[in-house]
Amino acid sequence: MSRYDIAIIGTGPGGVSAAITAKIRNKSILLIGSRDLSAKMVKAHSISNYPGFPAVPGKDLAAAFSRHLESMEIEITEDRIASIYAMGDYFALQGKDIYEATTVILASGVVNGKPLPGENELLGRGVSYCATCDAPLYRKKSAAVIGYSASEEAEARFLAEVCSEVLYFPMYKGDLALPESVKVIREVPVGIENKDGKRQVVTKENSYPVDGVFVLRESISPGQLVPGLELDGNFIAVKRDMSTNIPGCFACGDVTGQPFQYIKAAGEGNVAALSAVAYLDKK
Amino acid sequence: MSRYDIAIIGTGPGGVSAAITAKIRNKSILLIGSRDLSAKMVKAHSISNYPGFPAVPGKDLAAAFSRHLESMEIEITEDRIASIYAMGDYFALQGKDIYEATTVILASGVVNGKPLPGENELLGRGVSYCATCDAPLYRKKSAAVIGYSASEEAEARFLAEVCSEVLYFPMYKGDLALPESVKVIREVPVGIENKDGKRQVVTKENSYPVDGVFVLRESISPGQLVPGLELDGNFIAVKRDMSTNIPGCFACGDVTGQPFQYIKAAGEGNVAALSAVAYLDKK
Repeated sequence: MSRYDIAIIGTGPGGVSAAITAKIRNKSILLIGSRDLSAKMVKAHSISNYPGFPAVPGKDLAAAFSRHLESMEIEITEDRIASIYAMGDYFALQGKDIYEATTVILASGVVNGKPLPGENELLGRGVSYCATCDAPLYRKKSAAVIGYSASEEAEARFLAEVCSEVLYFPMYKGDLALPESVKVIREVPVGIENKDGKRQVVTKENSYPVDGVFVLRESISPGQLVPGLELDGNFIAVKRDMSTNIPGCFACGDVTGQPFQYIKAAGEGNVAALSAVAYLDKK
Repeated sequence: MSRYDIAIIGTGPGGVSAAITAKIRNKSILLIGSRDLSAKMVKAHSISNYPGFPAVPGKDLAAAFSRHLESMEIEITEDRIASIYAMGDYFALQGKDIYEATTVILASGVVNGKPLPGENELLGRGVSYCATCDAPLYRKKSAAVIGYSASEEAEARFLAEVCSEVLYFPMYKGDLALPESVKVIREVPVGIENKDGKRQVVTKENSYPVDGVFVLRESISPGQLVPGLELDGNFIAVKRDMSTNIPGCFACGDVTGQPFQYIKAAGEGNVAALSAVAYLDKK
């Protein structure tokens, strides 16, 4: 089995950026993920804050990423890694196949728990995972936020500045820091539906028709992927050079925590790759 | 005077990215720097690792950034900030004009080279970084300008209108656009000294006594820009959320240290802007 210099897990903006920089630095790389890149990005209606691409549909930015990879002859191995073991001076990665690499960059993104019924089907068509990205679509329209942690209240406050009406479904307990204009609904959503040209959040008790639904979850633990990996809450604890507590293991993008932003992930991917290169050069 | 929510110092990829995200979040922003964006980027022959732009000439990427800013009606204020003072609940920024902002994002890039021997010691006592600010101090007196780029010739022309004598030390090659009254000296300064109540610019060949010395680089060392700012070596010490030791003051890009990469700077600009927004929302 050939051993790669750098295995990169994930083909969102973090993984793509890491792969590009690692390749420029002449390292042998294994880039594992979907050839369709980030499903979240592809479905984003419009991305406004990736500098250089004003108001770009997510699928167009993903296509630009694909062209960039192709122009550098970087291939994507379609597999899903279930576990990664630190073997001392290398890592063993288990998916459909088993791979070996001297360093690993985790760019596996936010895992959005179990989707609500209707959520996947309506993603990009009235359902969104990013208020900062998609709020402009709902200017003077109504929006619902299904928030899985208190940090999502900031997104609801922002939406309240833009939308005519904001409903907030807290999926956690405790006091909320929300303006009066946000209508808090303490019912548990059981699905999202398309009806009469609107989306509706369905609870056991009622249905709430709105123009857009924001489902804002945190990640499930990436600690399950790499045993022994130090976490910070649900995310991987990283230093400024994107190193983790495990020597040779780096991380970038949403998996390292908020903010969940494409350009932040791409920037971190670059740093993670250069740190992995420095680690390899020292060996 | 109007007080901005966020003042962003620098128009490289860090500052541009911060401005775009801050504007999306409906904050009033002041973006200060050159309308030509980053001189370093514009001169880059080819940039290979800004995802989405395979092997792009720097000037083309800069043009894409400019279009992005224009599409969002973000304007650049051409000024050079010489100092920033934390006033408690806001910051005062001094350049040609004086500005006020509740938060500041420093994206001023890498400082070109080390300070000259004597420069730090005499700063504010005969050495200045801002001709527009300090020219009145040298009315009918003599001044030397150590100019690190052609854009500094404008400052020398201005000084020539005010001072009795202006010496110009170009630290770059090429023709100069200066009036005859400015004496051009093609020698390399190796230090600045205090002698007999005058400053003198010392070169390998000679010494030039003058009343004031203007050292005009593309950017000022960050510790001199913001008194009290905590540094890490020559760079601004930042946390993962791009906050500094001064509440309300954030930083991004090359000014926070290596790696010096466009995509890293753009990613950090996004994070700095969102952290500034969170800080403003808490206030």
